[in-house]
Amino acid sequence: MRVSVLRGERDVAVEERPRPTPAPDEVLVRVGSVGVCGSDVHYYEHGRIGPHVVDSPLVLGHEAGGVVAEVGSEVTSLGEGQRVSIEPGVPCRQCRQCLLGRYNLCPGVRFFATPPYDGAFAEYVAMPAGFVYPVPDHVSDDAAGLIEPLSVGVWAVRRTRVAPEDSVLVNGAGPIGLASAMAARAYGARSVTVADVNAHRLELAQSAGVGVLDVSQTSLEEAGLSADVLIECSGNGRATWDAVHVVGRAGRVALVGMGGDEVTLPLPHIQEHELTLTGAFRYANTWPTAIELVASGRVDLDLMVTGHFGLSEVEAALTAASRDPKAVKAIVRPGQE
Amino acid sequence: MRVSVLRGERDVAVEERPRPTPAPDEVLVRVGSVGVCGSDVHYYEHGRIGPHVVDSPLVLGHEAGGVVAEVGSEVTSLGEGQRVSIEPGVPCRQCRQCLLGRYNLCPGVRFFATPPYDGAFAEYVAMPAGFVYPVPDHVSDDAAGLIEPLSVGVWAVRRTRVAPEDSVLVNGAGPIGLASAMAARAYGARSVTVADVNAHRLELAQSAGVGVLDVSQTSLEEAGLSADVLIECSGNGRATWDAVHVVGRAGRVALVGMGGDEVTLPLPHIQEHELTLTGAFRYANTWPTAIELVASGRVDLDLMVTGHFGLSEVEAALTAASRDPKAVKAIVRPGQE
Amino acid sequence: MRVSVLRGERDVAVEERPRPTPAPDEVLVRVGSVGVCGSDVHYYEHGRIGPHVVDSPLVLGHEAGGVVAEVGSEVTSLGEGQRVSIEPGVPCRQCRQCLLGRYNLCPGVRFFATPPYDGAFAEYVAMPAGFVYPVPDHVSDDAAGLIEPLSVGVWAVRRTRVAPEDSVLVNGAGPIGLASAMAARAYGARSVTVADVNAHRLELAQSAGVGVLDVSQTSLEEAGLSADVLIECSGNGRATWDAVHVVGRAGRVALVGMGGDEVTLPLPHIQEHELTLTGAFRYANTWPTAIELVASGRVDLDLMVTGHFGLSEVEAALTAASRDPKAVKAIVRPGQE
Amino acid sequence: MRVSVLRGERDVAVEERPRPTPAPDEVLVRVGSVGVCGSDVHYYEHGRIGPHVVDSPLVLGHEAGGVVAEVGSEVTSLGEGQRVSIEPGVPCRQCRQCLLGRYNLCPGVRFFATPPYDGAFAEYVAMPAGFVYPVPDHVSDDAAGLIEPLSVGVWAVRRTRVAPEDSVLVNGAGPIGLASAMAARAYGARSVTVADVNAHRLELAQSAGVGVLDVSQTSLEEAGLSADVLIECSGNGRATWDAVHVVGRAGRVALVGMGGDEVTLPLPHIQEHELTLTGAFRYANTWPTAIELVASGRVDLDLMVTGHFGLSEVEAALTAASRDPKAVKAIVRPGQE
Repeated sequence: MRVSVLRGERDVAVEERPRPTPAPDEVLVRVGSVGVCGSDVHYYEHGRIGPHVVDSPLVLGHEAGGVVAEVGSEVTSLGEGQRVSIEPGVPCRQCRQCLLGRYNLCPGVRFFATPPYDGAFAEYVAMPAGFVYPVPDHVSDDAAGLIEPLSVGVWAVRRTRVAPEDSVLVNGAGPIGLASAMAARAYGARSVTVADVNAHRLELAQSAGVGVLDVSQTSLEEAGLSADVLIECSGNGRATWDAVHVVGRAGRVALVGMGGDEVTLPLPHIQEHELTLTGAFRYANTWPTAIELVASGRVDLDLMVTGHFGLSEVEAALTAASRDPKAVKAIVRPGQE
Repeated sequence: MRVSVLRGERDVAVEERPRPTPAPDEVLVRVGSVGVCGSDVHYYEHGRIGPHVVDSPLVLGHEAGGVVAEVGSEVTSLGEGQRVSIEPGVPCRQCRQCLLGRYNLCPGVRFFATPPYDGAFAEYVAMPAGFVYPVPDHVSDDAAGLIEPLSVGVWAVRRTRVAPEDSVLVNGAGPIGLASAMAARAYGARSVTVADVNAHRLELAQSAGVGVLDVSQTSLEEAGLSADVLIECSGNGRATWDAVHVVGRAGRVALVGMGGDEVTLPLPHIQEHELTLTGAFRYANTWPTAIELVASGRVDLDLMVTGHFGLSEVEAALTAASRDPKAVKAIVRPGQE
Repeated sequence: MRVSVLRGERDVAVEERPRPTPAPDEVLVRVGSVGVCGSDVHYYEHGRIGPHVVDSPLVLGHEAGGVVAEVGSEVTSLGEGQRVSIEPGVPCRQCRQCLLGRYNLCPGVRFFATPPYDGAFAEYVAMPAGFVYPVPDHVSDDAAGLIEPLSVGVWAVRRTRVAPEDSVLVNGAGPIGLASAMAARAYGARSVTVADVNAHRLELAQSAGVGVLDVSQTSLEEAGLSADVLIECSGNGRATWDAVHVVGRAGRVALVGMGGDEVTLPLPHIQEHELTLTGAFRYANTWPTAIELVASGRVDLDLMVTGHFGLSEVEAALTAASRDPKAVKAIVRPGQE
Repeated sequence: MRVSVLRGERDVAVEERPRPTPAPDEVLVRVGSVGVCGSDVHYYEHGRIGPHVVDSPLVLGHEAGGVVAEVGSEVTSLGEGQRVSIEPGVPCRQCRQCLLGRYNLCPGVRFFATPPYDGAFAEYVAMPAGFVYPVPDHVSDDAAGLIEPLSVGVWAVRRTRVAPEDSVLVNGAGPIGLASAMAARAYGARSVTVADVNAHRLELAQSAGVGVLDVSQTSLEEAGLSADVLIECSGNGRATWDAVHVVGRAGRVALVGMGGDEVTLPLPHIQEHELTLTGAFRYANTWPTAIELVASGRVDLDLMVTGHFGLSEVEAALTAASRDPKAVKAIVRPGQE
């Protein structure tokens, strides 16, 4: 089968590899659609993310959907031909974190496209059946893949316990910000506002039916905005600082956006308003809900797709965002060519 | 009656004022013992704390116990001669925060020794009966007053949900750190360690039966310490940074110590371990529990008392900590002379 | 002003009473619309509800909306002419339950139409401004009153922590069941099914956009239904027994419907599935959310209204449900004649 | 090796079986001490518990401690000679309940002494290393086994969120009641009272340092007792009914005791006080805490041991409680003879 391999910084190429054989508890998925994530771009540009170094060839891509092509001998939950979405991290299921249900914090997780584990820019991937979820036919191939970033949003919304009581501010209108905003609305938030400086992205957010604020024009404070919940997806220190200030008494903040080694926060505001801030790392137990939100029409993931690429065009997919401010989510379709 | 009044920066004096008459829902308390808090010292030294400016004479002191001297016409819960501890903030009980039970976040709270409300460095104070709590006879006068800082500790422990599952690190061995450590132990914490650089204070912590670490000798990291819960009472940026690093997966952090306008935190550690950080502001609904912890002998507040002063010695009480590194908690006894 | 008074069992009459003068913290509301609740009917038919005995004339009605007619001297939050919804219980705001934010459990609450406190079948009522909430102009008069039963539903949904993860079963398609079902959908429930034996009411539920099951035709078990959350609004012992059986592992149950002095539950099912059952008593802090749900169009309260009556027709309003199986919610309009 | 086998109702016999060989992820434990549980007795007397029928020979016993005798090839966490306590249920670690951290609700759990899975009345058992926990040397052999019933108590205490705010009533002074009471105290409960009708058991409870009430002499109501938390371990319908009545506003109830197919509860009391009742089924993630409570001396499990028996005396162990009202916890020591 054909795979796209990152061989070093800014060096990707299509290679032939043997098609995997599913283990007894696995299924083989013919990959239909894979979203390009900022982490894929970061590995491509820098050859590493923090301590995770690409020191041998790595297949990128972890936002994947497809069709079951082969079923391991012990698998009963899925059959050939089933359209599916893949949860890309397989925890050890033995450690304390796993037994506590916090499997996203499992130190032994095997996660797609995180060295040394290959990802999904490939014609086929094998995966334990428990991490492969059926999607209904009216959910698009791209949406099946984008259940992954939606899961990040669902998780942020759960970590901040968003409910109809809450006004929600989402910092950043990239894919994770958009997904978080749509998730917050689905959890019933009284209001959802996305703040960004990119007018194209704000238009997209608006088309998703949530409120927007162009903070290059009007600051949060000038806009008189106040929030019960902040979902910080910008990774920008100044934007974080400003946004935390508009979170009200007993407000909750999820720190989702990655932005360097430190974050500086307004201590007295946090103390006097008893804000609760929490890191949000990937997700746990989100797939069924995320699929349901899309299947029921409450979340539209297709609106964020701005380009499709074949396996031989992965480099173009990885550089789309840096070349075009209108690009939001590039999709790699391994079977396209 | 005699009161000690802060008339300006570093200017306190005893004055005569009319003894208050309790309103129908109030009791008059003859003040027995008042702890000196860092905030009292800060008002004395700087004439302000952030936005709270002492622009007219202010009576300091908010950690107060005493004896009921007179009872308002509608009060049935207390009688003359009852020994009591005073909760020093009276919320409006009408606003959204109050109705939600978060009365510590009430914007209209009237809090002792916070301009423009006078505190308890006085022979008598009048207080709504609902915020005056009986204490048993075997609880000392000083402990009756120090229920207040213990309440700060109890609140921090509740905000971080300390239970027997948890190892707890307390940053700072001042009165709030000591109170937090003793509260954490009473909530069943698997282990409690207090970190500080002041050997005298660490000895005190040790005498309270909790673990200690002199971080001027051995860093948290060198000590191999890891924590499920951090109660940050040092207000020191570097100590906070270091301590957050040893909080493990799904750990909780209460930011209690005040330390300037900002705090810088290790973002990736917070995200990847999904730490939850929360401001802790005063307390709500802590008095009955705090009194019970002392009455049952599980918490010993008297061990932190390092000096007693009369009303005419308030200046000495307020400067004790800056003059003597062994001083921990100074007590003002308005009836002493 | 004219009021409708319950003078004894099955004995209501219109009387003239002096129009109340609002206290400094109160507003006077010209009552526009009052829903008839099962408790009003019970007082009318039996002269009591459990320990609450009507031993002197009582004004019934506690689901009330109207227009501010006069404003107490200290009130700043509302002005004359403001359309409002009234929260009918005023807690003491002094007791332990109130300070904890559980004001619905306040033993000293003064609640409309609960002896000895008069209700809202009257041209005017005076009420502390903090329990009178503005409603936007596009919310109908009836809906302003029916915010009360919606609040019961919102509270049940909160007590059971309904979220998009959950399938919800509502037992009973009366006003509280309908309100609970609509609230559950607004909180994002994956699916909502209302079970009843009354075809008319099930049609109503269907028109509200939730699933229905006629359990006189098909039992829950036969229907293969399983639920994460059960909101029990039928008050029927057998229906409760059957419904608890279809609640799955870690499911939650709110017991809302009143049905005699005891309830018999399947102990092994509750234990082995670790169900959590909770009483739900009135509500606390629900008005802003309930109004928002209606104002945003997510909940339609007008669909449950099946009859309007003037003050002189209160007897007809109170007997509507027993006379007509199609009757769901009767509304009294004190200003109608 | 020798094992004690239940071959049918009231028919146990010692048999020889091959000593198990640990799988790569397992350890072989030489069993030191096994507590006799009411469920063992029930299987012995009735040949079944509800749907669980002993239709082929079954080894009873699930409260087991011992010493590691052999280590599977992949095990690194334990070594030969290590004294250990065994968690007797191994969940599938694949299903939704497991991934959510609620592994006690796993439908595929393999639990000691629950047909068709053999238990620990045997000289050796093999067990996945992840469910075998080291115990320090100063914890007795019996206590190593009794970590299991203590875990039931810890779980009940967690399900009811016991903390220093709470007065706790424990219904029933059998082993689970004693364990729950000691756990409640370790979690800081303001007060703990055990109610029973058996004076011997109440003496035992008293020796464990908790309050007692002989409800054959004085009813809960007569005693004026009120509780924030009820841990129901009697399985007696009338005792449950009475005890729920003394649980106050917002109180929590864990239904631990098994008592037939149904439980009848006072509905109005549950509703008006908004009690929360929950089933408590076995436990999840309790072993480290339970061991710590014993190791630190906060819980004394040895006090409940009232008899020791060898493998050939299992019948005597199983009938001890029915023969002797003073018997509380019988221990089987497979290596005794």
